[in-house]
Amino acid sequence: MNYETILGSVDFLEYLRGKKATFLLSCSVTKTCEVPNISQAGIPGKLYLTPTLDSEFLCTKEVRSLDDIAQTPKGVPTPALITRAIHELHPYSNIEILDLGLQIKPKLDFFKVHNFDLEPSENIETGANINAMEVFQKGVEFGSYYVTNDDYIILAESVPSGTTTANAVAKVLGYECEGYFSSSFKNNPNDIKSQVISRALNFINPNSDIFTKLGVVSDNMILFNAGFILGSRAKNSKIILAGGTQMAAVLLVVNSILQSMEGEIDSTNIALCTTSWVNKDKNSNIKALLEQLDFKINAYASDFDFSLSSHGALKLYDEGEAKEGVGCGGALCYATLNGLSKQDITTKIETLLG
Amino acid sequence: MNYETILGSVDFLEYLRGKKATFLLSCSVTKTCEVPNISQAGIPGKLYLTPTLDSEFLCTKEVRSLDDIAQTPKGVPTPALITRAIHELHPYSNIEILDLGLQIKPKLDFFKVHNFDLEPSENIETGANINAMEVFQKGVEFGSYYVTNDDYIILAESVPSGTTTANAVAKVLGYECEGYFSSSFKNNPNDIKSQVISRALNFINPNSDIFTKLGVVSDNMILFNAGFILGSRAKNSKIILAGGTQMAAVLLVVNSILQSMEGEIDSTNIALCTTSWVNKDKNSNIKALLEQLDFKINAYASDFDFSLSSHGALKLYDEGEAKEGVGCGGALCYATLNGLSKQDITTKIETLLG
Repeated sequence: MNYETILGSVDFLEYLRGKKATFLLSCSVTKTCEVPNISQAGIPGKLYLTPTLDSEFLCTKEVRSLDDIAQTPKGVPTPALITRAIHELHPYSNIEILDLGLQIKPKLDFFKVHNFDLEPSENIETGANINAMEVFQKGVEFGSYYVTNDDYIILAESVPSGTTTANAVAKVLGYECEGYFSSSFKNNPNDIKSQVISRALNFINPNSDIFTKLGVVSDNMILFNAGFILGSRAKNSKIILAGGTQMAAVLLVVNSILQSMEGEIDSTNIALCTTSWVNKDKNSNIKALLEQLDFKINAYASDFDFSLSSHGALKLYDEGEAKEGVGCGGALCYATLNGLSKQDITTKIETLLG
Repeated sequence: MNYETILGSVDFLEYLRGKKATFLLSCSVTKTCEVPNISQAGIPGKLYLTPTLDSEFLCTKEVRSLDDIAQTPKGVPTPALITRAIHELHPYSNIEILDLGLQIKPKLDFFKVHNFDLEPSENIETGANINAMEVFQKGVEFGSYYVTNDDYIILAESVPSGTTTANAVAKVLGYECEGYFSSSFKNNPNDIKSQVISRALNFINPNSDIFTKLGVVSDNMILFNAGFILGSRAKNSKIILAGGTQMAAVLLVVNSILQSMEGEIDSTNIALCTTSWVNKDKNSNIKALLEQLDFKINAYASDFDFSLSSHGALKLYDEGEAKEGVGCGGALCYATLNGLSKQDITTKIETLLG
């Protein structure tokens, strides 16, 4: 098991080999997830529960706000399984949850659940109605005071229908993004997503400032994490953005905000880590998104797949159904950095599935 | 997989079982390596590159200052493969490079490369021309302020033709050493080495002080690490000297310097770890070297060999071509202390070789 370098050099990741990580799961709900068939990251009609259940499962291996592990119609199990399996094999030193607007709070004792007084954001079809500046500033503030006792931070996300908001964000900010955004479906439901995005764009006044625009089309995770990245540069903490095209959108937001204020960023200590499913996806292009940044970024993809498994539900990943989420790409890179084998991880995930 | 005790008791090593290690690779070039056929630790005519390439490969799995992994004429692959394989299976928590006079700086980001403003030393055939006191004192100073966050330090070396300088050092200091020093060749090129050593000894004035003598026949690695060991006693850090007869020579220098100043050392927390290839070598005798120390020393040898491999290039190790270097003996003991199996290591090394 290894990783590929999408952009940059191996040095950042190699330096972290054997070092300790804090895992931060940033969770939010955008009511965009209520659009039928927009995402398969959860139970139809209950997608708002997914980040809550992911948090619970990652921390405790239990799904407390529902009877069963979130299963999608086709039975693609949540990528939280992957992230949790790795935690059982070679634990992250610390897991903390960032509640960036959950509809249902996760039922967790002992684990730190940071509360930022944020509500789920609205469906972007009618305008997300987010105070974008405020969410961004909460991210900046948290990023600038947050300290880990570990060597680096893995910053992950769980936001159902988040690739739709991410795509809308990139489009509104003027980036080339046609066909670049990923989906939890094998057959990217482009019609549905495009329709949602174009409806959202109707609410955009081209003369508005960047935060006003982002308040219409984005989600709390994107805004907060863009702030977190900028704020955390004060301490120059090493951060792995664990995710696919949604995390790329976070970086595009950072880029646009810097452009708007003629600012700069020392991005040396930030990298993006994703899965092979995103990296090899023919219906999206994360590299093309990252190449539009004005700053340099290291980006890697784990080469893990389910070729060693005969479990039908897991095989769906290799077929392109579900590709990222709950930081599983970052977790898989972390697994490589800590000597775990593909066989170990496969077996553990199969055990978790039961 | 296990280790043998050459001297002392198992307690030192057993205490370190499961504990965390920082790996320090001390690299230097002595132009003695330009003597034809004196060593097979690298590419003929380019042996000065070996420590640079070893550093790059250990840290990043990439050889950046050359197109291909250093291969010797007979195709004995660098022991850096062993040290790196173990890093991938059970990572050292931290790797740092000590530049003790490299001709070419390793191309590494993030990794700490300590610069001591040292140049490659001259061929001892014409006198090494080292300011031995200065290099030694740099080692003392570094040893006395260096702190690791880990439980112990593995101090390794990469110095092509370093067994020749080590042998010359032991001889000049008056130790019994006829036939005790190892070589990277199966058939120790004693004629060439003896000639180089006897030429070097022509430059020795028996009435000179120890540092003047060492300035003629040693290399920067030996001098610096002797200082490092003495300096590090202030903190009493646990140190594994990962190497064969060259590391034994470092200890002989420590011994002679202590004799000259009527000093003492608490050597409780220092041990030497080497390979079975050195330990079982009939053309050298590391135990006989270590038994001449006035202080007690724990010394161990891994029992790892390539009996599980069918790879021709690796089999050469078992035949006596290449025996140590890049701390592979210490790395193999570390592997045992952390539960790795001979099969895991063999497979990983074979994967690295491709």
